[in-house]
Parts: sequence; C-alpha cells; structure tokens
Amino acid sequence: MDRTDDAPGMRTTRLPLVAPTPAVPGGFSAKAFSGEVVPFGVTAFREGHDIIGVHLRLMSPGGHESLHRLTPLNDGTDRWRADVALEERGTWSFRFEAFSDDFATWSHAAELKAAVDVDTPVSAALGAQLFARAAAEKNRPAAERKRLAAAAEGLRGADAGTIAAVARDAELAALFADRPLTTLQSASDWLKILVERERAGVGAWYEFFPRSEGAKRLKDGSIKSGTFRTAMKRLPGVAGMGFDVIYLPPIHPIGEINRKGRNNTLEAQPGDPGSPYAIGSRDGGHDAIHPDLGTAADFRAFVRAAEKAGLEVALDLALQAAPDHPWVSEHPEWFTVLPDGTIAYAENPPKKYQDIYPINFDRDPAGIYAEVLRIVRHWVSQGVKIFRVDNPHTKPVQFWEWLIGTVCAEDPDVIFLSEAFTRPAMMQSLAKAGFQQSYTYFTWRNTKAELEEFLGSISRDTADFMRPNLFVNTHDILTEYLQYGGRAAYRIRAAIAATAAPTYGVYAGYELFENVARPGSEENIDNEKYEYKFRDWDAAEASGDSLAPLLRRLNEIRRSHPALRQLRNLSVHWSDDDSILVYSKHLGSAFTETGSADTIIVVANVDPHSVRQTTVHLDTQQWGIPLGESYEVEDLLTGSVWTWTDHNYVRLDAFAEPVHILKVRERS
Amino acid sequence: MDRTDDAPGMRTTRLPLVAPTPAVPGGFSAKAFSGEVVPFGVTAFREGHDIIGVHLRLMSPGGHESLHRLTPLNDGTDRWRADVALEERGTWSFRFEAFSDDFATWSHAAELKAAVDVDTPVSAALGAQLFARAAAEKNRPAAERKRLAAAAEGLRGADAGTIAAVARDAELAALFADRPLTTLQSASDWLKILVERERAGVGAWYEFFPRSEGAKRLKDGSIKSGTFRTAMKRLPGVAGMGFDVIYLPPIHPIGEINRKGRNNTLEAQPGDPGSPYAIGSRDGGHDAIHPDLGTAADFRAFVRAAEKAGLEVALDLALQAAPDHPWVSEHPEWFTVLPDGTIAYAENPPKKYQDIYPINFDRDPAGIYAEVLRIVRHWVSQGVKIFRVDNPHTKPVQFWEWLIGTVCAEDPDVIFLSEAFTRPAMMQSLAKAGFQQSYTYFTWRNTKAELEEFLGSISRDTADFMRPNLFVNTHDILTEYLQYGGRAAYRIRAAIAATAAPTYGVYAGYELFENVARPGSEENIDNEKYEYKFRDWDAAEASGDSLAPLLRRLNEIRRSHPALRQLRNLSVHWSDDDSILVYSKHLGSAFTETGSADTIIVVANVDPHSVRQTTVHLDTQQWGIPLGESYEVEDLLTGSVWTWTDHNYVRLDAFAEPVHILKVRERS
Repeated sequence: MDRTDDAPGMRTTRLPLVAPTPAVPGGFSAKAFSGEVVPFGVTAFREGHDIIGVHLRLMSPGGHESLHRLTPLNDGTDRWRADVALEERGTWSFRFEAFSDDFATWSHAAELKAAVDVDTPVSAALGAQLFARAAAEKNRPAAERKRLAAAAEGLRGADAGTIAAVARDAELAALFADRPLTTLQSASDWLKILVERERAGVGAWYEFFPRSEGAKRLKDGSIKSGTFRTAMKRLPGVAGMGFDVIYLPPIHPIGEINRKGRNNTLEAQPGDPGSPYAIGSRDGGHDAIHPDLGTAADFRAFVRAAEKAGLEVALDLALQAAPDHPWVSEHPEWFTVLPDGTIAYAENPPKKYQDIYPINFDRDPAGIYAEVLRIVRHWVSQGVKIFRVDNPHTKPVQFWEWLIGTVCAEDPDVIFLSEAFTRPAMMQSLAKAGFQQSYTYFTWRNTKAELEEFLGSISRDTADFMRPNLFVNTHDILTEYLQYGGRAAYRIRAAIAATAAPTYGVYAGYELFENVARPGSEENIDNEKYEYKFRDWDAAEASGDSLAPLLRRLNEIRRSHPALRQLRNLSVHWSDDDSILVYSKHLGSAFTETGSADTIIVVANVDPHSVRQTTVHLDTQQWGIPLGESYEVEDLLTGSVWTWTDHNYVRLDAFAEPVHILKVRERS
Repeated sequence: MDRTDDAPGMRTTRLPLVAPTPAVPGGFSAKAFSGEVVPFGVTAFREGHDIIGVHLRLMSPGGHESLHRLTPLNDGTDRWRADVALEERGTWSFRFEAFSDDFATWSHAAELKAAVDVDTPVSAALGAQLFARAAAEKNRPAAERKRLAAAAEGLRGADAGTIAAVARDAELAALFADRPLTTLQSASDWLKILVERERAGVGAWYEFFPRSEGAKRLKDGSIKSGTFRTAMKRLPGVAGMGFDVIYLPPIHPIGEINRKGRNNTLEAQPGDPGSPYAIGSRDGGHDAIHPDLGTAADFRAFVRAAEKAGLEVALDLALQAAPDHPWVSEHPEWFTVLPDGTIAYAENPPKKYQDIYPINFDRDPAGIYAEVLRIVRHWVSQGVKIFRVDNPHTKPVQFWEWLIGTVCAEDPDVIFLSEAFTRPAMMQSLAKAGFQQSYTYFTWRNTKAELEEFLGSISRDTADFMRPNLFVNTHDILTEYLQYGGRAAYRIRAAIAATAAPTYGVYAGYELFENVARPGSEENIDNEKYEYKFRDWDAAEASGDSLAPLLRRLNEIRRSHPALRQLRNLSVHWSDDDSILVYSKHLGSAFTETGSADTIIVVANVDPHSVRQTTVHLDTQQWGIPLGESYEVEDLLTGSVWTWTDHNYVRLDAFAEPVHILKVRERS
C-alpha cells in the first residue's frame, strides 16, 4: 500500500482497525508451527453505509511480501478473517489494511436503486466515472483496462436495466477482487508471529524409562539395569506404534544420599535404583550419564537408533540436585545456605524433600544461567533437540525467557516442553516466555462439560501462545478416571488425546492398562520412578490385553489426516446426551496436499461404564455442507459407513467401541 | 522503589506482573471521573512457595506520589486488587510493583514448622536474621527499630512455642505492612488513567424541546412557538425533580427546503416547525439560534437561569445541513457533489432523506475540522460545556478523536455524549476515542436475563473506557416495552436506570406515560421532532397521573447515596424467579463522607404485567456481612423496614410497587 489516510498523532486510523489477532499481550510474539493454518483476524468498520474491504499484508522471514483478502464474518461483530498456512520458519511480520471498496459501494447502491428506477442517471454517471478510473490504472493489464473502459462507455446514459446488469456482472467484479478501487486507505501497526518447526506443534510422544527396558532379574534376586543398548531394542516397537518422539526421564547419575526407596519411602534398600529426579552423584551431574545406562557413546548410539526408527529423543531437564551432586561442593552459592551452614532441602512447609536441593536462582544468576546453558548446549551437541522441562514453575519465568531465547537463537530446532501443573497465570506466562509446548489440565478434564470447555480453551483462547501436549498419563499422574474407568477409560482418553490436539503423549504402561494407584495418591503403585518395571509388550498384545493396536491405529489416522495435525481448527458440536462429546476438526481444500477438504468428526462416550445412545447435532455448514444435506461418514476405527445429515443417531458402547472417529467422505 | 531485579531485554519481570488494569488496548488512556473508586488490578505471582506482596504506585497529575497495597483475591487467578478513589482531575500515571514479602514467607513457614517442632533452630536463626535486617533499616522510626531488634534478640535460640508466638504477633506484622522487607522487586510499565470532572460520570439528564415549553395555540389555530424565555419557566420544575442536566435538541434555524411535516411526512404544512435536525436556513447555521426561540442574549439568559436552578445545559451537536444551510452555498466542497452537479442527500440506499445533506469529511478535512471546532468553541463561549453528539457513527472516528482531544485540551470541563446506536465495535471505538459518555442498548434490554448481561457489561467489561448514559426514552425511541407495559413499565425502567448507573436520562413526556407509537415505528406518534407538544405538568401531578414524584424520589436517593454515583460497584445477585432482577451497589466505608459503608440493593420485577414472589439470594459477604447473619434493610421508596439475611422472600406487585430500593442499615 502506497499511502494511508491516517492522520498523524491520532490513535484511531481513518478506517478503524481494532483488536488484530494473533496477538499476545505483554510484548510477546504470537506463535505458530510450520504448516499451521493461522486464522488472522481484525475488527474493521467505517462510518456510514459505504463498503470497506480488508487486506492482510504478510512479510515472510525471508522478506517475501504477500497480500490476503479477509472475509467479513457478517455476525454483527465487524470482525474479518483470513486463514493462511505459514510454512517458512522464523519471524513473520503482518499488518491489516482497510480500504474503501468503491466498486462494492457503487454496485450495491446502484443495484438497489436500479430495482426501483431511482437516481438512474446519477447511478450511471457514477458507475462510468468509477470504471473509467479503474481503466486508467497503469498497473492493470491492457486487456483489463480495455474491458473496464468499455464498461464505462456502456454506462453512459444507461437505463436501470443496464446498470443492474453491470452492477451484478461477476466478471467485472472479479477485476476488483485482487485490485480493489479505493479512495481511503488505513493500516494497522505491524505485528509479529514466530513460526517454529513442525514438531513444536505436531507429534505423538512416548515416554519410557530406559533402565526398565531390558532390565533383568538375576538369580540372586538382584536386578540388572537396562541400558541404552537394551532400551534401543524397544525403539522399533515404539516407532511401529506410530510415535514421533521418545522421551526419557533424567538419564544422569542418581544421588545416593537420602535416596528414596520403592513407593517413595524414605529409606532406600540395597539395589533400589532411586529416583532419576534426584540428579547427581560422585559419578557426575547434569552433563553426565548414569553408569548403569552406559556411556556417552551408548547414548549417541541410542539417539541414532531412534533417528533411524523415525523417533526424536527428548530429554528431561530437571534443574535440581541430589545432595551429592558435584554442584553442591563446587558451587554452594547456587543453593540456599541456612544459618546452621547446611543447604536447604526442597520443601513445601512443613513438608520436606530430603533427596533434593533446589537451586536458588537469585544468589549467583550469572553463574547458574551460564551453567544451564552449558548443559543444554552439551545435550544439543549429543543430538538432542527436545527438552521436557521438569517443574519450570519453581524457577524464575525470566530465566526461561532468557534460556529459551538464547538457545533457540543458536538453534531454532530446539523445543522445550513445560511440565508446569500449577495455576493458569504461571502456566500461561511460561508459554508466553518461550516454551514451545505445555502440559495442560487435560488429565483432569474427563466429563463432557469439562472437555468442551477445555477443548475450546486450548484451540482458541490460548492457541496464539500456548501449544498443548495432551499426555494421557505420566509417571506422576494416574487419575481416578483411569484408576476406576476400566479399559474403556484408556480407549476413550487415548482417542480424545490423539485427535483433539496435534500433540499428545503416552507414558509406557498405558497400553497395558496399568491402573493401580499407590493408596491415597494419584500415581501408579510401585512407581517406576523408584524401581525397575518388567513389562512383556509382545505377550500382552498377543493375548489381546494391549492397547497398542488402538494407539497404532490412532497414530496412522493422525498421519493420514492433516486436519488432526492442526491446533486451531476444532469445533465442539451439540449432542443431547450429557456424556456424548462431539467435536470436529476441519481443514479446507486450500490447505491439503490432495486438494480435498479433510474433515474428521469425533464422537466419544466419556462415561466409561455405560452404553449411551443419543442424537448429535452438527454444524455442517462450517465444512461447506449445507444444513439438511446428506453425506457419507466412515468410521476410521471400524470401517463402518453411514449416511449422515446435520442430526444423527449414535450409539456408543463403552465396553466395545466407546468412540467414533469419522471421516467425512468427499461428496460427488 | 529504588531498584528492580528485572533483567534488561526480558519481557518477563523477575516477579511476573501481567494484565494490569484499568487498561484500554490500542494505546488509549483508561478513564475515570473525579470521585470514582477505581479498582486497580494485576496478575502477580512467583515461582515456588515464597510469598509476595504487590503495591500500586500512583502519580497524580500534580506530581503527588502514593503507594497502595493490593489484596490477593485468593481465587486461583493470582489476581490482586486495590480500590482507590481518584479525585484530582487530569492524567494520572500508575504502575504495579511486586516484591518478595520476606516477613510473610518466614512467618508462614516458621509457624507451620513450629507446630510440628521441625527445623526449630533454623527457624529461630532465620527469624533473628530477618528482624535484625529490619531493625537496621535507617528509614524506620527509632521506636520501631528498637522493637525489631528486641524481637531479633528474643528469637536467638528460641523454642518452637516462642517462634510460633513471634510468627503470629500482629503488632510485629503491622510493622511490615507499610514497609515490607524484601529481597526481590519488580515493576510493571507505567500506565495512564485520565480523570475527568464528576459530571462526565455522574448526572441525571432531562431533555426537552424549548419550542414546546410555552408554545401557545392562537385563536386563528396557528401556534406560537415557545422561546428560551418561556422555556426558562420550566427549569425550576425540572430542577425540582432533581435533575442535573437539561439537554436541548438543536436550537438552530431549521431548513425550509424539503422540510418534513408532522409524523415525518414529506410535505410540511404551513406552520409546521420542521425537524430541528434539519439544521440551517437563510437565518444561519450551527452557530445561529432559531429566531422563534429568541436571541443570543435570550439563550445566555436561559443558560444562567438553568445554572441558578442547579442545571447544566447540554446542546445537540448534529453535523449535517438542511439544503438551505449557509454551508451549502459557501462550502459546497464539504458535501458530496454528484455528476449532475447536485449535492447528495443523506441516504441508506434506496432510501433517501431529502431534508438533509451529510457532510463529506474527506473532501476538505482541514476546512471542516476548523469549522466544527469554531462552532464548538462558540457554544462553549456561550456557557455550554456539554454536547450531545447526534449520530457520531456517521462521521470518521478519527475526527472525533481530534475534536474532543483539541476541545478538552483547551477546556477539560467539556463533555461529549455519543448518540451512536449501532454495532458494538463502532460504539466502543467512539468511547475510546474520547467521548465522555455514550448512549447504550439499555432501552432494548428489558428481560431479567438481558439486563443481567447488560449491567455486567457496562459496569465491568467496558467501564475502563465507556461511560453509559441510561436514557429511558428519547425523542427517537419509544420501545415496545413502554408501549405495552403500562405505567408499571415506566416505573420499573426509571428505577433501574436511576440506580444501575451513575448517569441516566429522561426525555420530557416520560413522566406523563406517553406511550403511543407511530404505527410500525418505535417512536412517539405526533413526534415532537416535527411539531409542538402541549403538556400540563402540574395538572398531571395534581391528578396523580404523573411519574414526577417517583423521578423526584429517585434523584433524591441518588443524591443521598454515594454508592449510586459509582459505575464499577454493581453486583448482580441471584433470584429464583426469571423476572425478578436483583443487584446491589456498594461503597466501602473508606470512600464515604460519613465513614459508614453505603449499600443499596435493588430488587425489580421486570414483568410489568404480574405479581411475582420469590426468594432472592444475596452474596452479603462482599458488603462485609457474613453469610447467614441478619441485618436490616429499609425500602427507600416506601419506608418499609425488614430484617434480611442472605436468603429473603420478596413479593413485587407490578401494579403497585414493582421495585424495592433497599438501603442496608449499619449494624450496631
């Protein structure tokens, strides 16, 4: 746009442009991942009755500029929208430009007046002026200019019928679609959106403890730890289920002082491996590898094996120290020293965690910042590009803004996942400060009402800055819903997690329906944090006691349906039953490789103890299907095919198939 | 605050401070009126378990700085709040400061640990350190320092009981309330809030047409117009009802070309006075006075008489011209000239308004801007400080930002009321651009559900930038609710308008229950816009057929209850009946002249055709009354007194007393 009619010094533009999105308050950049279809929106309007148009001007990180016409929502909000898929990684700039749409204003008024033969000579003359103006635009192709000049000529002295025909002429209107004729122009400020790599937004995660994979019970009753070399053998199985990321809890030496025993008991017994979160011992700290797991070379081999299987390795970044961590003696200034000269344990008064010293970030910020950066760089040099950050909410948010900003400036491939389970303000601030992904309240959102609110929240309210990773369970979380919901609960939660967000995760054992909690807690009994677990994946699958086939199928569905690899395209629909949750994910034909729209409808019975039947009511218009028209849906889990409309009967048996994942078939 | 621990270049402060309010997006200043109690809020939190405190630092327009401690809402939002009454007019600056509250952190942990006798020597030593630090602060009074030093001494080697006693010592805690002991400090950016004069936010408005007040039917059947001199006689009556502002529709010469006749007919009959909105004739334009109304001196006398009666005069600012307005011949460039050389009428195609030419602000902005400024300055020089702006949404928002900014920089007493009835985006943008007051959707919000949503919206969602003026009717608006709701409807709407917002208004005739609409329209039949109205106020009141006594009482109640002169203190409460609306307005004792809290509960039966009885459920805690405790309420309309709790039976007879306005009596 060459000029604007915006007066200097005024906060209001000549044509007001209000509340542009995506936008994140506080000076933070909005976020997207490569390939994400981003809804750009702005509130734009003008005084009086004349018609305006709105453009989005995008400047790619490489400096390529493009213009996109926005569509008015026409719902009384004066809101306009354009969906654009952002591929190129880096920081994009964008702004909105409003303009008077002189052709639309003329044709609208001329058509209405022609219908009642009012002001006919004036309409004709105004139209002739307008087309002559367009015909004089030097940057139009000659053929267009000729066509426009002819239209101008044809309008001179025209009657009402001729005017109406010109005003309705789609071919003429098309000449103004890309190059509108305007007398007024306004522009918003420039805004920014950071596009990160696809894995920042899309992926299926699998967590396992490498020490359990290949652990052996010896004849003397003691246990030989699994190693990177033995754990490597499980990678094809994980990859075969369709996962993209293999996440490992801390792989560092584990403290021996105050080591925790099985089931979080205070006294470890000989042979108890201890919690990997009590990091550091005489064998080293955060840059070291637990000797039981192998060597640095073994770890690199593990990373390569994962890569070969199509898996990326994610490491845990847990910034805390066991009492025997080398930091404690080398850098006591990184901890809180009490008046008696001891170092303060982690605590939540009066509770105390005696196997862990928390870092005090305010005593020697420069030293601590440099050390953490050194550690992250070390693991990046070992081939790790993803970090699952333990309890980031117990460290300063500002520290994370600095660390992630520094690391990603060096290597924009690095991804940090925030494991903060706390109040929304902190969780959201961590996301704004730079975390590429965040754990969410998903595990505690189990009823239909809870899930509807939650899904709306992650896909709309916070999507500009927070990318949810919907883990169904973790080594810390075994919800009551899973404890008491039987196998149906596991099926339901996996299906929702895999389809509702482009990133989800599973902690090993989920597929074996491990559902017994330590009494009074919300985590597994005999928790793997404090001991080795022995699991026979193949035997479980052979006997039909494994969820692996469902996980495999869910990941296949995710790979073949691009709509499921988007975050912001979820819509909740209505059902008459208070346990039947319905949502859809839709991706328009402009954004798919096939050129066909991709529409998935998920219908889930979230009551794991019942058979439910009800009617679901779908807003099919948002997928381009007029209300009342029929279309075919195919259940991607069972292969069943039905003819649906906007109102459909469903029956979901929690004990058989609690969830439909329906693909809407292209209509011929 | 001397320093912050906020690292340069980071968007996150060391202690995060997020979403400060009041704040208006788009770079606009937040607004308050002198005497308004403004809720300042911010989301503040920190990593880990340590306790923080938050201060609001206020800088008055005159440069006086003050510090206010915020209270945490403790509702999981990490939101903090402090209410401050802003008196001084002008632009205030404010920011939020978060700090580690070292005393609170110690006393909280020490008390919990002392209870189980854990870490007793460490707690004692930490406490001794803390008090010694406070005792060393040079800016503390000597007595305080002595007291703190003694506390430090007393903690050395103390047992758990002593520690607990010190941790709970309210007197010691008080020493840290005003002067907290902190190790970490963060500050938000500075924000701005503009405090305008009280009348910008508080007032009861009354509209009349001066030409009707004192108009006389002559023997020959013709009508002699009322004048400023005759209309003046009505001022004591209006003031006697307790109104603050007398608003006059345009007082300028009325066009003769294409003048509208009675009931908006196209052909005026001889003697028809025409619409005052068709401004301008051979007698002059926007700076002139209609000869029928009198002279400039008469007008000034009217303004003085109003002032004497305690009324401010508000004039209409309707920027449009009759075809015979002097502008049309002198400045044809201010209008849209059609190809046939004629000037374009106002239109909404294909409808046309042939008595009015709209101004085209884009043809000669400099000329038009200067002319409007000249006109406003002229009326300001005549003693007018309030302008009710007709249809501002048909002029550029940017123009209003400029005009209001320019006028109020010269004279901050000037108030502009936006008469925009259009979509929310435009209405809100006009308010943000500078309008001190706005008409609202109030007249079309009549059911309980509509009103609950509406009252929440005006008192919370938009209160930082938009001040509602709740007119119950206007010369353009006679809603179906009033047309068909009988006298009860008039009582109900007046009571709600007068109590729900600090500014409301009435157009003359409302008190006579004028409720007949022109068929097919939502305005009065025989509309005063096109003819003279004859009304006998005294006779109506003498016969009991007037609402004047109720309006008088409502305005008395408003004057004696400061809670009703606030905007942001409204809370909606629950009732079991879908037509019984309940809300309260509360002003804490810190903000009243009497030093007693002022609490008003309004219970309205919004169904004007029925008797309703139900139970209302009140959140009394927000007024400082514990749930379940009883208190006395006095009906300010009837004098009845009841003992209420949080659940109360009410019976409201639309045909007798459809509304309770209850004062909560101070409890002894």
